[in-house]
Formats: sequence, C-alpha cells, structure tokens
Amino acid sequence: MKIINYTQATSHAFDNEMVKGVTGRVVIGKDDGARNFCMRVFTVAAGGFTPKHSHAWEHEVFVHAGQGGMLRQGEWVDVKSGSVLFIPGGEEHQFKNTGSDDFIFVCLIPSGIAEI
Amino acid sequence: MKIINYTQATSHAFDNEMVKGVTGRVVIGKDDGARNFCMRVFTVAAGGFTPKHSHAWEHEVFVHAGQGGMLRQGEWVDVKSGSVLFIPGGEEHQFKNTGSDDFIFVCLIPSGIAEI
Repeated sequence: MKIINYTQATSHAFDNEMVKGVTGRVVIGKDDGARNFCMRVFTVAAGGFTPKHSHAWEHEVFVHAGQGGMLRQGEWVDVKSGSVLFIPGGEEHQFKNTGSDDFIFVCLIPSGIAEI
Repeated sequence: MKIINYTQATSHAFDNEMVKGVTGRVVIGKDDGARNFCMRVFTVAAGGFTPKHSHAWEHEVFVHAGQGGMLRQGEWVDVKSGSVLFIPGGEEHQFKNTGSDDFIFVCLIPSGIAEI
C-alpha cells in the first residue's frame, strides 16, 4: 500500500500561451501498479487557468481547495472545495482560478493514455 | 458535464458491528455514463471507522479533510487532508477517524462491481 502526501509526488509546471500557473502531479499511476485508472492532483495559482481543450477520454474531478470556474458549453460555472465534476470524453472544458488562494483539484483519467 | 457538490449526492449511512459513523455517497458512477471507474466520497464521524476487510479490486484514495489512521499490514499509519493512498487488490485495509472533526475521503474503484 502506498501512502504519501500529494505534495511529495514529482511536480510538473505548465506555463505557456494555453495554460498559466498550473502545477500537476501524478500521485497514483502505472508505476504503482494501478492498471485501471490514474490519479493526478493539479494546483492552479491565483490568476491561472488550464488549457481549453477536449479529448476522447473522460475526467472525474474532485475539487479539494479554493474557488474556480469550469467552462461548460461556453459558460463559466462556479466550483469550489467539495465540487465534483464528470467531464465525458469529447466535451470541451477549462478550469480557471477565480479566488486569491490556490485552486487545487484531483483529476482522474483511464489508464492507457499519457498520465500527465 | 455533471457538476455537483458531493453533499448533493444520495447518502448511505453505515453503522453496525463492523463499521461505525460512516456516510457514503456515489458521486460519479455508471448512471452518469462513467464506464471505467467510479468515484465515491465517504465521511467518517469522530470516533468512527470503516470495516477491516480486503477484496479483489483496488482503491485510489484522496483524503479531503480531517485526520485519521489507515491500517497497513497490521500497523496504523497517520493520514490527513492531502494524503493519497493506493490500496492494491487483496490487501487488508481499514480507516478510522482520529480527530474531532469529520474525516472525509474520496475513494475510487474500477467499474463492474457494486458502487457502494
């Protein structure tokens, strides 16, 4: 059994014209023997956002901390600590941090694709 | 895209000789079209615990709030908000709340078994 704090996992910083202020960590993945799905934790700094995109696989998301917005069918929906989101494959999506603290969410994907 | 607060999902209370003070909710499952894995959120009240058991499928867990313990190979390991646990199939496990506030964790399982 693996037990860590999510901050102990290797961090990957994302900052370019498509994504701003995002740090991502694979906390459970194929290296742990997880063969069905993969858990990542993302931190979005104040003012930051994830890319607006879509892809074939689904996301299952739990918002751990902070306040943000999710772009759903072209409109921003408020989300916050305790929010749960199911983003089916093929549906465009984007998170942004709308608060002054870090916006932190857990995002799971099926196995068999890039883990981060 | 489904967006809810986890507390909006139907709650199931568990209280017997094996499990105490536990409330479980399926927040993303087959009814949402999630075909690969299922997200549940469990709240363990102060003094409560989950059953000590093992089963063929794995758990991927993120601790959202509170302080608790996880029984790993017969020893209790402290966990808290921000802890991540990968419990492989076949490994005995049990959570307990060791704090005075609710202990809340997200627990994912593969599809194809009972969701709660």
